Order: sequence, then structure tokens, then C-alpha cells
Amino acid sequence: MADDQVLNDVANRLRVLSIQSTNASNSGHPTTCASIAEVMSVLFFDEMKQVLSDPRNASSDRLVLSKGHAAPILYAAWAVAGLFPEERLMDLRKIDCELEGHPTPKLEFVDVATGSLGQGLSCAAGMAYTAKHFDKLDYRVYCIMGDGEAAEGSVWEAMNFAQHYKLDNLVAIFDINRLGQSEATCLQHQMDVYKARCEAFGFHSIVVDGHCVKALKAAFAEARATKGKPTALILKTFKGRGIPGIEDQENWHGKPLGDKAAAAIQAIEGKMSNKRPSKVPMKAPSISAPATVPSAISLSKPPAYSQGEKVATRLAYGTAVAKLGEGSTRVIALDAETKNSTYADKFKKAHPDRFIECFIAEQNLVGVAVGCGTRKRTVPFVSTFAAFFTRAFDQLRMGAISQANVKCVGSHAGISIGEDGPSQMALEDIAMFRSIPGSLVFYPSDAVSTERACELAANYHGIVFIRTSRPATTILYPNDEVFEPGKCKIVRKSSSDRALVIGAGVTLHEALAAAETLAKEGVNIRVCDIFSVKPIDGTAILQNAAECGNNVIVVEDHYEQGGIGDAVAHVLAQAPGTKLRHLCVRGIPRSGPPSVLLDVFGISAKSIAQAVREI
Amino acid sequence: MADDQVLNDVANRLRVLSIQSTNASNSGHPTTCASIAEVMSVLFFDEMKQVLSDPRNASSDRLVLSKGHAAPILYAAWAVAGLFPEERLMDLRKIDCELEGHPTPKLEFVDVATGSLGQGLSCAAGMAYTAKHFDKLDYRVYCIMGDGEAAEGSVWEAMNFAQHYKLDNLVAIFDINRLGQSEATCLQHQMDVYKARCEAFGFHSIVVDGHCVKALKAAFAEARATKGKPTALILKTFKGRGIPGIEDQENWHGKPLGDKAAAAIQAIEGKMSNKRPSKVPMKAPSISAPATVPSAISLSKPPAYSQGEKVATRLAYGTAVAKLGEGSTRVIALDAETKNSTYADKFKKAHPDRFIECFIAEQNLVGVAVGCGTRKRTVPFVSTFAAFFTRAFDQLRMGAISQANVKCVGSHAGISIGEDGPSQMALEDIAMFRSIPGSLVFYPSDAVSTERACELAANYHGIVFIRTSRPATTILYPNDEVFEPGKCKIVRKSSSDRALVIGAGVTLHEALAAAETLAKEGVNIRVCDIFSVKPIDGTAILQNAAECGNNVIVVEDHYEQGGIGDAVAHVLAQAPGTKLRHLCVRGIPRSGPPSVLLDVFGISAKSIAQAVREI
Repeated sequence: MADDQVLNDVANRLRVLSIQSTNASNSGHPTTCASIAEVMSVLFFDEMKQVLSDPRNASSDRLVLSKGHAAPILYAAWAVAGLFPEERLMDLRKIDCELEGHPTPKLEFVDVATGSLGQGLSCAAGMAYTAKHFDKLDYRVYCIMGDGEAAEGSVWEAMNFAQHYKLDNLVAIFDINRLGQSEATCLQHQMDVYKARCEAFGFHSIVVDGHCVKALKAAFAEARATKGKPTALILKTFKGRGIPGIEDQENWHGKPLGDKAAAAIQAIEGKMSNKRPSKVPMKAPSISAPATVPSAISLSKPPAYSQGEKVATRLAYGTAVAKLGEGSTRVIALDAETKNSTYADKFKKAHPDRFIECFIAEQNLVGVAVGCGTRKRTVPFVSTFAAFFTRAFDQLRMGAISQANVKCVGSHAGISIGEDGPSQMALEDIAMFRSIPGSLVFYPSDAVSTERACELAANYHGIVFIRTSRPATTILYPNDEVFEPGKCKIVRKSSSDRALVIGAGVTLHEALAAAETLAKEGVNIRVCDIFSVKPIDGTAILQNAAECGNNVIVVEDHYEQGGIGDAVAHVLAQAPGTKLRHLCVRGIPRSGPPSVLLDVFGISAKSIAQAVREI
Repeated sequence: MADDQVLNDVANRLRVLSIQSTNASNSGHPTTCASIAEVMSVLFFDEMKQVLSDPRNASSDRLVLSKGHAAPILYAAWAVAGLFPEERLMDLRKIDCELEGHPTPKLEFVDVATGSLGQGLSCAAGMAYTAKHFDKLDYRVYCIMGDGEAAEGSVWEAMNFAQHYKLDNLVAIFDINRLGQSEATCLQHQMDVYKARCEAFGFHSIVVDGHCVKALKAAFAEARATKGKPTALILKTFKGRGIPGIEDQENWHGKPLGDKAAAAIQAIEGKMSNKRPSKVPMKAPSISAPATVPSAISLSKPPAYSQGEKVATRLAYGTAVAKLGEGSTRVIALDAETKNSTYADKFKKAHPDRFIECFIAEQNLVGVAVGCGTRKRTVPFVSTFAAFFTRAFDQLRMGAISQANVKCVGSHAGISIGEDGPSQMALEDIAMFRSIPGSLVFYPSDAVSTERACELAANYHGIVFIRTSRPATTILYPNDEVFEPGKCKIVRKSSSDRALVIGAGVTLHEALAAAETLAKEGVNIRVCDIFSVKPIDGTAILQNAAECGNNVIVVEDHYEQGGIGDAVAHVLAQAPGTKLRHLCVRGIPRSGPPSVLLDVFGISAKSIAQAVREI
């Protein structure tokens, strides 16, 4: 057990390293780090149970640094713990160093990427729920938030969730350092208001002097002793703590200290009993649960529909996810109080212990799922009306950077929902999900393909979107039809087709009806079920288009931009006959100097010149 | 002044009409209406000041029905007030009736569309802020929310905002009817918890029997007397109130009563002293302010840059919006605690009374702007990092349905921001903003075009996105260059161009650099500044592509999907040489039977057959 003086020394050492690393990178947030130096020291070297040789150990406590711009002090803590040499910190934010401007799971000690504020607590709540209900392990989850980010509503969605599910293994840590980016926060140091808010949201709430290691240790002990509710530690701190002339001053957000660093370090080290504090071992978890080794997940029974039967694809989703839950205990399902519309209630009925009702809070819904899926502990299926996933776009965007494994199933797509009107109609959801790097987008048109889309989704690590429809649609495929990502299906063809009509969901059935009408007029058309909107089956589209005189019609229940039309146009415009080349950011980018990034991601002058030379 | 018995009779009449209209449409939410019958009666016929002949009167009180699925009772209230015949209510949700499933501003008594829960209070707060600070009128703003939607974080963002700005002309009304869609809400009837939450967020909070008109009248009077803080009325109510066998029962969400309607109406009418209550006149505002007559908004001074100077487009935004604020007092600016990065602080410095700091809460940021812009009272410019607008996609989606007039300016676009890393890089923002119906998307590449983009945005009624960049870029245009929506600029050309390179922002400058390199190799390229990503300049692209051997290269600092590449591909694939036809939902849809909607929006079998015939 480290004594308080050592913890104080470690805290100051973390401050010094944060100042030095941000000075080395000439960017970053040293004052944001300084306000949490003591709590980081106490967490790492007194409170948390972690495994230095295995930072993603299944049994270890989790830390989510929601205020991700304090990344340098997180990196410093792991360096001081001994995971890598402290010198490595001086490569912060360099193009070849994974110590990026904000934490990402490229680092083995990071579970979820942070940097878009207010998202961490939902992920932490998902981890805490997983500990209690799926892993049945005693690990605890800590989440450090800034005070500026407490204005984000997603924080209060997560608080409400944590209260409802009595997550007493969750500690929300608010770093109330009074200052935001461009001015003071709206509540400044009104600790009583923060306490009242946290209490009203059901947290055992403790106001703590965030710069006193003794008080912090006591508060964490109190949190551990608190049963039946989560705990909030509300830390009164100062931005830039310990840096003379900068502590508690405005205009120091996101600025390295530059030539003020030397004096700052001298002042901080002057308070240390040992400038290089002796190594403090991390506490280890009492047991070591095995890591998850993912295995293939199958529908427990194949689809069982009759030809010509009419079944809504949203209903088929419910059937499928319940069967996947039978196929693997890692499959869980979450919904945002729409389960009798999305048919997630079929999963709840089959596997009540693995269903999480998230109520009407879609940001938290997605954030909890991201958290549940970390360290591969679960495979979360998340459902709501497709339109309402727009509420969680930022969580999905960050989910991609987090390497999250979340399956989003959006029902009630498009105008075909009818009378409820435009607020309930998803018409931009494909645009949104296509834009997420690494995502798959499936748009099944019957119940058989819906079930297989769910099975494919369960076996792909990443973000998958499955778009389901409200109306019942006719079964098109035999129960043993095989579907693949990136493969479309030609559902009607002849040797004299005059056009290739590409549809999905309700519009595919409209296309088939149109084909019947036209056939009576003596005109044949080829009908394509796109199924996999992303990746799109470019080869089949080009070949079939050519066989249909290059007349292509895309018909979709979606707005003009970003949907199937754009995806098909992108294929056609790059075909040998036409000559579009598209230079853009493929894959998730990283920290580095702008000019180097432009080169690395192929959008610089060099890349353009090369593309021209290749013409 | 209506006496309590009349108000009770009106409440019951509203219940009856809600049951009848949802039965007529065979869809809708009568039980959701029934829980707010008394508060609607008291608001319309005792509390609010409205003008029957002019529902959008500048001086009148505002009502936002955030629980938009209670639309039938809002429509009933206006019918009972006399705006249109009660018989019209029986056309609810029909294809030719603007009484849609959820309210939209197609109706003159609706300011903002609702139906995606948890958004109304932000809009209401924007209206209340506008009343106090811009209109300087004494109108009051009321917002009715459900209890299910109180789980949405956006509600608490709006509460925090209302507290901070002491909006004592705002009344948040929570209808705590205990039941959600598929199960009870998480807090059910824990009125004390709701009260504690509202108080912690700075509201004067009153728990009220929501079915007692006397108590409601007293509560509204108390709200009016409360100064320096907003008021929350927390109504204890019952879903399906007054309907025997259905009141407070599960499984009655979103279901018309069908053959149970007659008995329900009989029971309700049995409690009325007069089944057709006599008309109660609405109270009128004490003064009548003039309606806004929008006029053109210009930069107070033209751009003033030197050729070759380097200026970041984000900085040019600050300069431009400050000048627009000089040009028109209707221009206001809002930011989410990034104003020293987006340069919105230049507006704050020039026009402190018209700048609203919204802190780190992007959903509320956009919602407040939507509210401020209603009844054309202001022209709001909203800025934050472009990546963080993804947080507000649902608000923007609803904003389009609301006919909102909001200018979104997103800075720090793309990988060219460098060291901060992917969490801060907007790479899907163009995909998002392109998908919004009726939106304009400008991506200026220098300070001159940025200033003109802002001026164009101010004069377009709708949602506009302007993408600005972090690095300083060279001035390309003379200060008097004219820009238009839907028009690109060719910034380099020769008679022997081998390829058309389309860029914007940093990549346009990369393209110009590539052109220099290639010229030395004896290869000429044409360089296009796309400027207006939506609408896109299809004519110029096709013409210039043809002049460059149809070799087109798009280079953009954005992910592959949904950006400039897709927009250009869409143009190329539809060119005479190629033959893509795209049937999709153009414009904002509406309520109606699914099959009729498919026809009206041109994605039905009929439309497909017609498209084939046209080939």
C-alpha cells in the first residue's frame, strides 16, 4: 500500500511528464492533466486492480478517461507503472507513435476512444453492467469526466441508466476544475449544485478535495462500501494545479507551456520528496478470468418460412436475434423502449437475462452497447427506429474509432411506414451508416435474408447496420439461400432485359411488381436485390448493367444523397467506360502533422499528381 | 375567465375528439392525449395569450408539444378554439390533410416539428431567450414533455441552459403518466425524484395533480410570479385518463380504441355538464408586435484580403459573421464553448448582446438555434467543430421538417487538423449535411469565398452547412468575386488539360500544388474549386470533364462515402453518356397510407415502370 507522500510524489511526477510530453509535441492540454494528477495517482497506485503485463485482462478494473484531452496523463500513468519507458512519452502525437492526441484502443490499455466529450460514462456503464450481469466478475469501473462535459445530455442519460440498474460497481468521477476552453464553465465551483444533480440521478455523491490523496482514498473506500447504487466523486480541483501563474487562470486551455515549462517543473519538483518516486506495484485482481476467444455464431435453427408468405423484416429480426442468442451466450440485445415495434421483445422473452432495456435515450443506448462489447465480452445487438439512430451519430462515429463491435438494427425505414409522418421515417440512415469507416450496411428485403443478415453481422467485428421495414413483405428466397457481404442477388432476369432495376426492402417488391406490369407490355427488366449496400457488389452491378444496355435504375426509400443511388453511382462512375478516380480518407485516421497525414491518407499534391500520371 | 367546470368540460371534449379522430384514422395515440387533456384546456382557455386569427402572431405565447404523438389533442384544441371546424379532425393522418401524425409547421399554429422525443425544450428555450433578449416582448413559452422522453439527455441540456440564462418566461411541463410504449417508465410515479432533478437543474419546481384544473391554474400563476428562474410543472397524470378499463393500463400505447370508443366516449361525456361546451375566447396578448418582414442581409464591408495572403477559413468565418451582424440586427451567433477555435468570438466581441454561449451541449445548441429562428425573428449562425455537429444529427433532421432557418458552420474539418487525432476530425460531416432535405452545403477554400458563403447562407431560408478548415490557406479570389449556390469555380485551366481535378478546402490547394508539379513534367490539369457541394454544379462538371478527356479526379478530406466523391459520381453516372436514373424521396415526406406515399414520392412500381418506359 503506497503511503500518501509517495502518491503525492507520483501525482507530481505525472504533472511533470504531462508538461514535458505536451511541450515535446508542441500541442496538447497540460493544464487539463494537472487537475487530475492526484486522482490518477490514487487510482493507479492505490485503488484500481490492474495487470501490468496484460492491460486488457478480463478481470481487471476498467478506467474510461472521458475527458480524453487529458490523454498525456493517462499515458504518463502507464509509463510510471512500467508498461513502457517514460522516454516514449516524448513521442506524444507523432505520426509513428500510438500515443495520440486522444486515447484510442490501438493502445492495449484503452477500451474505448474518447475525445468527443460526454460519451465515456455510457461506455463505462455498459462495462459495469457487463461485470454484474454477464461476466459475473467483481471488477469495478471508473470514469473520469471534466466539468465542461457535464453539460452534455449523454452524461445524464448514463446517470439515469446507472441509477436504474443499481450499478454499484461504477464510480463517476467529475473533475470540477472550473474552467472550460474559452471561458469558465457555467457552474464553476458550485459543488453543491453538482452534488444535488448527482443525488437526484440516484448516485451516492461525495464532494472531495481533488488534490488531497487522503480524501480521495477515503472517498474511493466509501464508494466500494456503497451497495445498491453507483457513486459519484465530485472533485473540487484547479486547472493547471501546481503551475505558478497558470493554475486557475483563463486562456491556458490546450496550450503547452513552452518556455514557461522549466519554471513550472522546478516549482512542482520543489514539492516532491523524491523527484523520481520509487516504483509502486499495481494491485492485481483477486482472480484471473480467461480472456474471450470469439467463435462463430450461428442461428440455432435455419430460417423457416414458406414461399409466398408475408413477413415484415422487423419481425424477422426479432426471430433471428432470439435464435442467435440461443446459438451463443455472448449475444445480447438492447433497445430504447421500442421493443414491441422493433421486435427486440422476442429476444427479451427468449433470453430475459441478456436483454437490456435502455429507455428513450439513444446516445446512451449505443454507448452502453459499445461498453458491453469491449474486451470481446459480448456481441451487442441494438435496435430502435432507424430514424432515431441519428441521435447517436457521434457515438457511432466514435464507436468506429473505438473498434466497437455493435450491430445496429433500425426499423421503420422510409416513407413506407405511412401515417406516423416524417419525424418517424428514416430517410438519411443509410447515408449515416455508410459514412462510418469499416461499417457494413445490409438492407434485406425478406425474412430469410434478414435472418442471414443478422447472422453475418454477429460474425463481423465492427459496426453493422441492418435496415428493417415496417410492412410485411413477401418471402423471396428459399430457407437455405446463402448471403454474403458485398454480394447482391439478381431476383428476376431474362435474355432481353432492357434495364437493370436495383432496389431493396419495399422498393424491391415495387420493382418486381413493375416488372410484371412491363412484361405484359412486352418489356423485360432485370431486378437486383442490392442486399449489401456496403460493401456494394460493384462487379455484379457493372456486369448486369452491361447486359441491360447500361440502363440502370436505382429505386430506394431514402433521400437522394448518401443512399443506394450514391453507392451505385460511385460504382458506375469508376467503371472502365467512365473515369472517375476518388481520393479520400479511407480508414480511420490518426494523430500527426497535417502535411504528413495528407500524404499518408493519399489526398496530398503528391497523391494527386500520381493519380494523374496513372491516367 | 373560464370557470373550472367549463375548463373540465373542454378537457373532456378534447379527450372525446382525440378518441374520435384516432379512430377515424385507425392509428394514433389517444391515451397519450388523454393524460394532458386538463393541462391543454387550461393552457388554451385560461393561461396562454394567443391570437385565433393569427396563430403566428409575433407577440403571442408559444406552445411546443414536445411529446408530438399527442398531436390529436393539439389539433382538437385549435378546433375547439375555432380555428377550423371540428369535423376536419376526422381527416387526421390522411394524405390530403395537414393534420399529420406528428405536428409540423405546415400548420400555422406549429412553430417546430416534434415527434423525435426530447427535442422540444431546447426549441422552447430558444424562443424564451429570443423573447427576453432579442424581441424584448413579454410572451411566455410553454413546453409539454412526456415522462418517457425525460430520459433523453437533450432535455437536461436544455434545463441547464434555461437555468444558466434565468429564463423565467419558460415553463417546462412534464406529463408524468407513468407508462411508456412497451412498459412502465423507469421512474413511474416517483414525483419526488422528478422534483429533485428539476430543482437540481435550477427550476422552480411544482408537483401538480395534472387532472385538476384548479391546481393547474394555481401552478401557472405561481410560475408567472416566479422571477429569475424557469419553472417546471411536474404533472401527476394517468395515461388514458377517463377511459374505463384503459386508464393506467399497459398495452394501450399508440392504439386507437376501435370498438371500445363508443363506451369510452359515453363514460367521458357522462362526466360533462355540457357535452358541447360553449366557446371560450382565447386571451389576447396585451400588445401586438409587428411580424418580421425579412430583408436581404449583406456583409457590412466587402472582403478585404491581399492576393497571396494566408488566412484560415475558420478565421474568415469570424470576420464574416461579425460583418453580417453589422449588416442586420436579426443575425445572431451561437457556439458550444469552442468560440476561440471557431472564431465565433469575433461576433461576440462585435455584438455581445446577440451572442449565445451554449456550452458543451451540441443537441441543445442546434435546438436553441431552431427555436430562435422561429417566426423569422432571428437568423442564427451556429458554430462548433464540424465533427461535433454529428451529436445533433437528429435535431438537424427534425430541423428540416421544422423548416428551420439555421446556418451551421463547422470548423476543424478533416485530417488536416493534425495532431489532435481522429476524435476531433470531421470526416463524415458532408455526408450528414448533404442528406438533409433542402440543405445547402458550402466548402470554401479561401477567406474571400468563406465570407461570401456566409452571406449566401444568411439569405437562404433553410439549413446551410459551411465547412471551414483549421490551417491557413492562400487567398485565391479577388475581393469582388461573385459566388452562387450551385456554381463551382475553375481556378486553373489550359487548352491541353489531361484531367479535371476537383477539390475543396485544403485539397484544392493540394491540387494546385500538384498542377505546378505536373506542369513541370509537361502535363496540364484543370483544377475545379467545387465551393457548392450541394447543390452541385453538374453542368460545369460535365462540360469541363468532357474538355479533359472525361478523366475526373475528386480529392477530398472526407471519408469515401457521402462526400464530394459521391456527389460528383452522381452527376457523372447520370450524364447522357451513362444512364443512371435515381428514384428516391426528394423533399420532406408526410403522413399518409404507405402505398400512396410510394406513389406520391415516385418510388412505387408505377414510377419504376414509367422510368423504364422513358428509356
